[in-house]
Amino acid sequence: MKRRSFFKLGSLVVGSTLINPIDTFAENSNTLLNSTNKKAKNIIFMVSDGMSSGTLNLANLYSNRILGRSTNWLQLYTENKVSRGIMDMASASSIVTDSAAASSSWGGGVRVKNGALNMNASGEENRPIWQKFKAKGKKAGCVTTVPITHATPAGFTVAMKSRNDQAAIAEEYLRLGYDVLMGGGQKYFDAAHRTDKKDMYAAFEQHNYVVAKSKNDLKQAHLSKKLLGIFDLDALPYEIDRKQSAELTNTIPTLAEMTEVAINQMKDHKEGFVLQVESGKVDWAAHANDVSALIHEQLQFDEAIAVAIKFAEQDQNTLVVITTDHGNANPGMIYGKYANDHFDSLANYKFTNEYLLNNIKNNQSESQIKEFVKSCINVELTDEETKNIASYYNGLKKGDDGLYNYKHLPFKALAEIQKKYNSVGWISMDHSADYVEVAMFGPGNHLHKPFMKNTDMHYLLLDAAEVENKF
Amino acid sequence: MKRRSFFKLGSLVVGSTLINPIDTFAENSNTLLNSTNKKAKNIIFMVSDGMSSGTLNLANLYSNRILGRSTNWLQLYTENKVSRGIMDMASASSIVTDSAAASSSWGGGVRVKNGALNMNASGEENRPIWQKFKAKGKKAGCVTTVPITHATPAGFTVAMKSRNDQAAIAEEYLRLGYDVLMGGGQKYFDAAHRTDKKDMYAAFEQHNYVVAKSKNDLKQAHLSKKLLGIFDLDALPYEIDRKQSAELTNTIPTLAEMTEVAINQMKDHKEGFVLQVESGKVDWAAHANDVSALIHEQLQFDEAIAVAIKFAEQDQNTLVVITTDHGNANPGMIYGKYANDHFDSLANYKFTNEYLLNNIKNNQSESQIKEFVKSCINVELTDEETKNIASYYNGLKKGDDGLYNYKHLPFKALAEIQKKYNSVGWISMDHSADYVEVAMFGPGNHLHKPFMKNTDMHYLLLDAAEVENKF
Ligand SMILES: [Zn+2]
Ligand SMILES: [Zn+2]
Repeated sequence: MKRRSFFKLGSLVVGSTLINPIDTFAENSNTLLNSTNKKAKNIIFMVSDGMSSGTLNLANLYSNRILGRSTNWLQLYTENKVSRGIMDMASASSIVTDSAAASSSWGGGVRVKNGALNMNASGEENRPIWQKFKAKGKKAGCVTTVPITHATPAGFTVAMKSRNDQAAIAEEYLRLGYDVLMGGGQKYFDAAHRTDKKDMYAAFEQHNYVVAKSKNDLKQAHLSKKLLGIFDLDALPYEIDRKQSAELTNTIPTLAEMTEVAINQMKDHKEGFVLQVESGKVDWAAHANDVSALIHEQLQFDEAIAVAIKFAEQDQNTLVVITTDHGNANPGMIYGKYANDHFDSLANYKFTNEYLLNNIKNNQSESQIKEFVKSCINVELTDEETKNIASYYNGLKKGDDGLYNYKHLPFKALAEIQKKYNSVGWISMDHSADYVEVAMFGPGNHLHKPFMKNTDMHYLLLDAAEVENKF
Repeated sequence: MKRRSFFKLGSLVVGSTLINPIDTFAENSNTLLNSTNKKAKNIIFMVSDGMSSGTLNLANLYSNRILGRSTNWLQLYTENKVSRGIMDMASASSIVTDSAAASSSWGGGVRVKNGALNMNASGEENRPIWQKFKAKGKKAGCVTTVPITHATPAGFTVAMKSRNDQAAIAEEYLRLGYDVLMGGGQKYFDAAHRTDKKDMYAAFEQHNYVVAKSKNDLKQAHLSKKLLGIFDLDALPYEIDRKQSAELTNTIPTLAEMTEVAINQMKDHKEGFVLQVESGKVDWAAHANDVSALIHEQLQFDEAIAVAIKFAEQDQNTLVVITTDHGNANPGMIYGKYANDHFDSLANYKFTNEYLLNNIKNNQSESQIKEFVKSCINVELTDEETKNIASYYNGLKKGDDGLYNYKHLPFKALAEIQKKYNSVGWISMDHSADYVEVAMFGPGNHLHKPFMKNTDMHYLLLDAAEVENKF
């Protein structure tokens, strides 16, 4: 049996050196350099979940000012390698979508109500697009930094009344036989965590899957087998926290690494492949107004863009779509005398606010809290600010509610305090109706309109690959 | 002497019927329908000052849901008539620009410090682009809804150490002899209001200008004369408040009307013309988190887009640039069960928050305040909310500071209250670093890159018109 080499695309240079500048470009920039009427054999669909346009701006400012190079996303614009447009992501029930309805609009070509996965109010199912492509002989997969059973991968792959039954989604994945599934979500696969005590790992192995539970396990992936990679109980750790831990760095792959493995696993398939790549915790960070989490998750996504584009440039038959499913919290750098210094202070944030707030102990003294905050983000809180944070730990105040905050940590209070020091503002801790950014690289991007509805994407992907919509 | 007919472009249909849908479009949308390598004889440069991408979203949602048609701006995208990209507007001193540095970056091709108008830290001047075009024989003008001496028109026309000396800017306009100047700003022209008591109106008249002080006066404009139109003491009233007053509607022209007059005044000039059109109070509304002001100013700008595009489509030799100089307050509709109803409630806002707050009287009773608020925006405040608003009028609390809020009205408190009812959130009351939207129509837009620096715009405009940069 042929053993696959790990990270086969070669040593990947991420950032400004990825793509050579083009000299002949100045005079004719509206002629897309890679636009053709060619058929897309492969599709890589990349979603930075919950990315407001301000998030892209913050990540690019960080990349330019702190890392000394453009993001890959904006570099593709500068070099005129992609088409771009904006997209209206409204769902059947609301001008502000959730991730399930958003992914379903692309996946099923029909707007469904918030919370639903490719199922209309009537109970009728819309066939998910990765099923359509599988039926045409292509390999199909998803990778994400949140549970693989989460809304965004699920919207391309299954039809369910509700996004919430992730244990059932895991079973659907097995039934439908997707070729590559990687991300978090052990609790939906592990018999010890499932309420029905089913051992989904064993079930996948019985159906010709290699099951990987660590970065090292990925070396066992074989071309003749399918691949299920589950690297954490729920979502994977935030990138900036992961980097601070040698153990996590050694065991949990990055989104770029998962993307590379997924491409290698499917790229030699004669009929081609389709792959969804999601940076799911950009959304979670926005829900928590957690600025360093947000920026570094977006940068992690940006490294996955480099992997996808590098492959697509070599392959010449791959359409890469780069987008998000909705805005979230509309973060932005606010005008002021110290805007530059405030922005640059973000380079001193060593951990996420999630890490910081999880590691303050109940009834810790105020001076201990002050010292700990300083060690995490290099901000010296005032006495009043320290007292405010402490009040959430000594029982005087209750922290935020929120989908991803079951411990009711005071994310909002911390972000409000940080705003004074970093000038980053947020409109809320939830999704926004803003139109979203869409870029497309490679064959099929001649179909891309500057303003589109989310459901148009479904048909664009089918058209690009010349797959008829007869299902 | 030839008398110009008023609003000569003919009865203008604004909105979805402006442009006929194109049938042959679906399969080749990346080939811009109007892209040519032709020289641009005329340029119309349109700025919605301080428009976050969320502002464009809110205006288009309003247009679609309440008015039943797309905005003209997004219709241009849907019909693939424009190139589009994003632009980095940072100034020499900050990642978050002010309007003077922003306009100067386009106008002078050099980033200057916030507050400066085409003047470098060294004191050296950068020649403003409308001067360059005038030197090549073109007519040049500006129209705006704020004082004509304000930062955005000034950045294309003059070089000054500070944007603040608007009385001096008025004198520079006369010295430089711009062909059309329309907007507000009586206090910088009227001897009774200027500290130096100079009668700038008389001075302009002595230099071959028709001076218009009302919509009716515009009928006196002659092709052989230049035109100065000053329609209010400071900025023009907000569009939604103007519409509620027959007097204001009769005397003060809209931005679309001023745009049409300006085009008519210059369009027959053999060497062509350049015109800047600014919706200046989109920015002021964002500074005040004043949602109905914001949406209706953006819609007013959108009607001016229709005028410019209609002319450019007939003329075939006109480049139209549509953009903004920076984000402001990053407004957005927030996720929630009632998002649609909350958004639609904005149709019941009959006045701006500025009007509302200006018309609450000191020591008015709480029930009077409650009733008045209800009459303005159809929101029934709770007792607690009413008490909160009242506290700013009975001396218990002090309202916001802010560039455009010398009376310290409690804009922020009102927007916070409204958020509960309309689900619109704001990150602050100031500019943001977000990259801004740019669309271009007509000859020259083949030069448009998907991501550009603000200073690139200067050279793009010169290149589009084939004017060498030898000044
Ligand atoms: Zn979310
Ligand atoms: Zn402003």
